[in-house]
Amino acid sequence: MAVAVNESLQQLKQLDEKISAFSSILSLAGWDQKVKAPKKGRSTFAKSMGAVSTEVFKMSISPELGEALEELTKPEVYETLDEKDQALVRDYNHNYTRSKSIPTDLFQEYSVLTGEANQAWEEARANNDFASYQPYLEKMVDFKRKFAEYYGYEDHPYDALMDAFEPGLKVKDIDPIFRDLRESSINLLERIQNSGTKMDRSFLEKNYDTKTQEEFLHNLLPKLGYDTEAGRLDATAHPFAQKVNIGDVRITTRYDEDNLSFALFSTIHEVGHALYEQGVREDLEGTGLNGGTSLGIHESQSRFLENMVGRTPEFWQAHYSDLQETFPEQLKDVSREDFYHAVNSVQPSFIRVEADELTYNLHIMIRYEIEKGLIAGDIEVKDLPRVWNEKMEEYLGIVPDNDSVGVLQDVHWSFGAIGYFHTYSLGNLYSAQILNTIQKEIPGFYEQIAQGDLTQIREWLREKIHQHGSIYQPSQLIEMVTGEKLNSDYLVNYLEEKYSKLYNLK
Amino acid sequence: MAVAVNESLQQLKQLDEKISAFSSILSLAGWDQKVKAPKKGRSTFAKSMGAVSTEVFKMSISPELGEALEELTKPEVYETLDEKDQALVRDYNHNYTRSKSIPTDLFQEYSVLTGEANQAWEEARANNDFASYQPYLEKMVDFKRKFAEYYGYEDHPYDALMDAFEPGLKVKDIDPIFRDLRESSINLLERIQNSGTKMDRSFLEKNYDTKTQEEFLHNLLPKLGYDTEAGRLDATAHPFAQKVNIGDVRITTRYDEDNLSFALFSTIHEVGHALYEQGVREDLEGTGLNGGTSLGIHESQSRFLENMVGRTPEFWQAHYSDLQETFPEQLKDVSREDFYHAVNSVQPSFIRVEADELTYNLHIMIRYEIEKGLIAGDIEVKDLPRVWNEKMEEYLGIVPDNDSVGVLQDVHWSFGAIGYFHTYSLGNLYSAQILNTIQKEIPGFYEQIAQGDLTQIREWLREKIHQHGSIYQPSQLIEMVTGEKLNSDYLVNYLEEKYSKLYNLK
Repeated sequence: MAVAVNESLQQLKQLDEKISAFSSILSLAGWDQKVKAPKKGRSTFAKSMGAVSTEVFKMSISPELGEALEELTKPEVYETLDEKDQALVRDYNHNYTRSKSIPTDLFQEYSVLTGEANQAWEEARANNDFASYQPYLEKMVDFKRKFAEYYGYEDHPYDALMDAFEPGLKVKDIDPIFRDLRESSINLLERIQNSGTKMDRSFLEKNYDTKTQEEFLHNLLPKLGYDTEAGRLDATAHPFAQKVNIGDVRITTRYDEDNLSFALFSTIHEVGHALYEQGVREDLEGTGLNGGTSLGIHESQSRFLENMVGRTPEFWQAHYSDLQETFPEQLKDVSREDFYHAVNSVQPSFIRVEADELTYNLHIMIRYEIEKGLIAGDIEVKDLPRVWNEKMEEYLGIVPDNDSVGVLQDVHWSFGAIGYFHTYSLGNLYSAQILNTIQKEIPGFYEQIAQGDLTQIREWLREKIHQHGSIYQPSQLIEMVTGEKLNSDYLVNYLEEKYSKLYNLK
Repeated sequence: MAVAVNESLQQLKQLDEKISAFSSILSLAGWDQKVKAPKKGRSTFAKSMGAVSTEVFKMSISPELGEALEELTKPEVYETLDEKDQALVRDYNHNYTRSKSIPTDLFQEYSVLTGEANQAWEEARANNDFASYQPYLEKMVDFKRKFAEYYGYEDHPYDALMDAFEPGLKVKDIDPIFRDLRESSINLLERIQNSGTKMDRSFLEKNYDTKTQEEFLHNLLPKLGYDTEAGRLDATAHPFAQKVNIGDVRITTRYDEDNLSFALFSTIHEVGHALYEQGVREDLEGTGLNGGTSLGIHESQSRFLENMVGRTPEFWQAHYSDLQETFPEQLKDVSREDFYHAVNSVQPSFIRVEADELTYNLHIMIRYEIEKGLIAGDIEVKDLPRVWNEKMEEYLGIVPDNDSVGVLQDVHWSFGAIGYFHTYSLGNLYSAQILNTIQKEIPGFYEQIAQGDLTQIREWLREKIHQHGSIYQPSQLIEMVTGEKLNSDYLVNYLEEKYSKLYNLK
């Protein structure tokens, strides 16, 4: 390699090391503020975190980084780099180019707006008052439309926004896949509702001591493959997984006294995220490649563990007697099959985060279509409550009583996350593709789950997906793992098969 | 103010704001690693913290800071600044001048040594093998003697080292004070041992459920004046207090099943530290002045609450019945007076951190005299085990069985903290002076303690000491508060009076 290349690579790696160190500490700090920090210190601490974040941002758009990237992205240079260095250059360049493309003044105005819009949203939701939030959201959409122009795109301006969250996937890829999934889901939902079969979920809402739930879950963690010496489980209002480094991936859940399934399945979900981060190759530690490659692939790992493993009859063949012994009073008259049915029941509801496995994607479709229309200029912000409710009626057959449980329910738009929602359904699509492959490669897949042994399954996921961190782009990775591009077939078939059995459909 | 002054002040304040933000986050990160972090992530995280600390160090010796300080320390400029800005200039300049005075190469060699010496100490202590640690400690002392020359001093090279921990106090100030305290303490100890009175402490070593201890202490915290919405109490191997910001001051303790007094008094001690940090004026938040002014003054606050409040008969008048109700089995036959005697019993012992209120200072004297001798060249490292044991015999009348519980017991020297130990006894001296003053200014001092109401006492400490953060130097502050310079009279009298009563001495 020429001297200039070597020097540029060194420069990039030094900056990367520093940015990674700062980010790791900010990640820990973020966890602490949600999980442990006392109330009175938080607003001051937010400023301290802001000051450190600003330094990270400055490094990520610094002239030093720009110079290094200019050299390293020359095609004749780039092709001489190894896979890992190429990935590092690719990711830093993606981020640098996007950040640099927005004029500083515009970005500052936008930053101010996100703070204001977030507060306006909180109040609007609390007061069921979309009109008070509307001007903020209008400004937000205007910014995002401008940003899309600055970022640049080929076909659809929305592509430029989605690219921040799931690099490479465009409207023209997603539209046909989502259409298939939407049509088949609506059809399946109709058949389920007409089947006459009703699942009894009432016993899940008995009184379940939260300390006992906590103990049960702490015992379950290692059985799910989670390394408890490289993480911890705490309680928070909203469950999440947070990586500090490969040896420290923390998860949280919420314990509801009158809801057994929430903590249970949200914990399995977060463990799915955590296995990804705990499984990254050691040599990626301390670099920008040491995390999952995209939101969609990340969600595929959480959904895989939650639904494709955690909601199977085989999983409860392994664990139901433990659960029953833990809550003998509440579950003594509940058979394993009843329990399995209850945690898989389908019921259209207003709130996305409470939706079942089938209707969840329909909630996402509504958001995807609305965002796409807003950015294209086909939908206006003022019409959102109406559009929202029409789509709810069309897809789910129900209309929310008010906007607080309708168009105002999600925080995302208020802090500028437009182009994000579709990654949740991508996760479901990817996970079904992965399920199809893993069943072929591990013929005893369901037997092992039934025996309570997820070792081989975790090792397979680690080898095929987790270890690579961010080296491969999501589209590359899914093709490497499954031999196919993203498509709707596997999820559509999986849902059809699963619910046909559960609801005795023809 | 001239433009140059204004600009320099702006420059200093901008750097200060950034350094303070970074330090706050590092402080939280340090807390987390000791209290919450899972095992496997810690070594990687230490590197991340190292990277951020390096940035803080770079800022603290940066040319920008140097330029600003050059302008602001000009006498004709300095005198025009307000009290707060003067203090900021004073502290940054103190630190900058000291850091800059050590040649970079020498400092790097020293940094390497601290890592090695710390590991060597750990092994030496575990194996009771001073000889293996000796070469490291010899190098450490050599470095410190060189540093003292670089820092500069008037009378004694040890002054230059102590200045890092308790600015302004010199050997010539401390020697006579420590001599008085040492002589009177040895004399008092002898009389106690000859008194024939023995305190029964055995009931403190019954089985005390740790969860129940924890609950009792959580209930005690607000009664001590600790703001539980601006901090938290956790369990760790070694108790400590850590400030993240004024609204977030965390403390820890250790719960021993067979030792009731350890968690109790270590918690009251750490609350003393925490009240100081929680009580700093809001306008100092986010600046380098937002913490206690020195180790000695800090220790005075912890010792004051632990000993002058927490070990008084009045304190247990207020709280003993609660404690007895909490542990009815263990304490049913123990009167309040027996309890008060037990937690104030005097017994020479080998380990500093386990020493009682009287003998504690003698442990400190040994270390102070040895350090002073090492730096002056009057004592050689190879002779330390002998010198240590001789002083133990002379002051405490006991000789440790081995070096692990003798000269090897403390971590401090291994990481270069020479000139630190004396601040522990300064804390005791300051606290007795403060006690004398507060009793005059709050005539109902002991009545209020007996009523379990520390409100006025905390407010007095806040007004006189806590609120000022680091604005005043320790010597300035103690004179402002008590009207006198640091002296030994009050502690000597306090100990004499306390133990004469307890042990019926003549």
